[in-house]
Amino acid sequence: MKVRVFVSLKEGVLDPQGKAVGHALENLGFRDVGEVRISRVVDLDVPAATAQEAVEKGEAMARALLANEVIEDFRVEAAS
Amino acid sequence: MKVRVFVSLKEGVLDPQGKAVGHALENLGFRDVGEVRISRVVDLDVPAATAQEAVEKGEAMARALLANEVIEDFRVEAAS
Repeated sequence: MKVRVFVSLKEGVLDPQGKAVGHALENLGFRDVGEVRISRVVDLDVPAATAQEAVEKGEAMARALLANEVIEDFRVEAAS
Repeated sequence: MKVRVFVSLKEGVLDPQGKAVGHALENLGFRDVGEVRISRVVDLDVPAATAQEAVEKGEAMARALLANEVIEDFRVEAAS
């Protein structure tokens, strides 16, 4: 079953990659670009009988590897 | 107005980062992890009067910088 893990920086954590993208956009002529934040989406196919089991596996994977919970939040959704 | 740009590899394009994550998950004891694909989400705050204008700006930014259209697809959504 497919699960999707969204991993984003916690609020208040600086996003240097986003900052660099914001500057690059300004240099390309896009005016008044506000804050830019970059997140990751990890799409996985896990063996699970139910959507709930798939989400639980996705959460375990996020805690173990996909997200750094010190600075990142994650959210897991079962996909089709 | 906030826009969200999803950038993902086109189907058929190899995802070495996803492959590495898949192997790492197997090594951590997660069995039978299928294909892993990693995408980016860029959240931007752009000056726009309407959601449609914001989406158009997001698309222009994606074409100019955020996505490599040779190997990546993108999708833009207006957020709240």
